[in-house]
Amino acid sequence: MSSFNRPGDVFLADCPARLAVEILSDKWSVVTIYALGNGPRRHGELKALIGGISSKMLTQTLRRLQHHGLVRRQAFAEVPPRVEYALTGLGESALEPVGVLSRWAEHNGDAILAAQEGGAAPL
Amino acid sequence: MSSFNRPGDVFLADCPARLAVEILSDKWSVVTIYALGNGPRRHGELKALIGGISSKMLTQTLRRLQHHGLVRRQAFAEVPPRVEYALTGLGESALEPVGVLSRWAEHNGDAILAAQEGGAAPL
Repeated sequence: MSSFNRPGDVFLADCPARLAVEILSDKWSVVTIYALGNGPRRHGELKALIGGISSKMLTQTLRRLQHHGLVRRQAFAEVPPRVEYALTGLGESALEPVGVLSRWAEHNGDAILAAQEGGAAPL
Repeated sequence: MSSFNRPGDVFLADCPARLAVEILSDKWSVVTIYALGNGPRRHGELKALIGGISSKMLTQTLRRLQHHGLVRRQAFAEVPPRVEYALTGLGESALEPVGVLSRWAEHNGDAILAAQEGGAAPL
C-alpha cells in the first residue's frame, strides 16, 4: 500500500467523487446549501440571508445545485405565485461537510488574517 | 433566538470566518492541502499527484496557501537546490474539513452524476 493509497484519494483523480468535491468547493454553493439548512426559502429570502450575492449569481447557483440534484425548486399555484427552494436528501447530506467547514472557519478565520498581516508570502 | 441564529452563521456575513470558508471553497486549494497531508512535497511531486493541474495554477495555489498561512515553503541549500512545500499547523487543522468533504464526495459522487443524467434542471 503506497503512502498515497488512502481513503479519499479521490481528490487526486478524475472520477465522480472529484465532481462532488468540485461542487462543494464553490463558495456560493456552500453558502447557499448552508442557508437552506433550516428549511425551504424563497429567492428573495436567500438573497437577504447571504451577504454580498447578486440576484444573478444566486439564480445561477440555485440552478447549478438543482442540476446536481442537491436542491429542488417548488412552485405553488397561489395568488401571488410562490416559488421556494429546498434541499433534497442529497443536499441535506451535504450539510455535514458544510458544517465542519463552518466550524473550522470560525476557529481559524482570525489566524488566517493574522498570517496575512504578519507578512506571509505576498500574493 | 431567531431560526438563523446558530453557530456557523459566519457563512452569511462578512467576517474572518467567511474568508476561511472562501479559502477552503477553492477546488485547487482543497486538493493541494489534501496532497500535502502525508508530508512535505516538491512542486513536481505535487503536480504528479494532482491530476489536471497546470504548473502555473499549482504555483498560484501554493502561493495563495502560503499567503493565508496554511503552507510553508522550505528551501534546502543542497546541490541541486531543493524546495519543498509543507502544511503549517493551521494547514494541518484544515485536513479535518477536507477529509469530511472527501468522504462525502466518495459517497455521493455517483448520486450527483445520476441526478444530472436523470434530467435535473439543465444548466
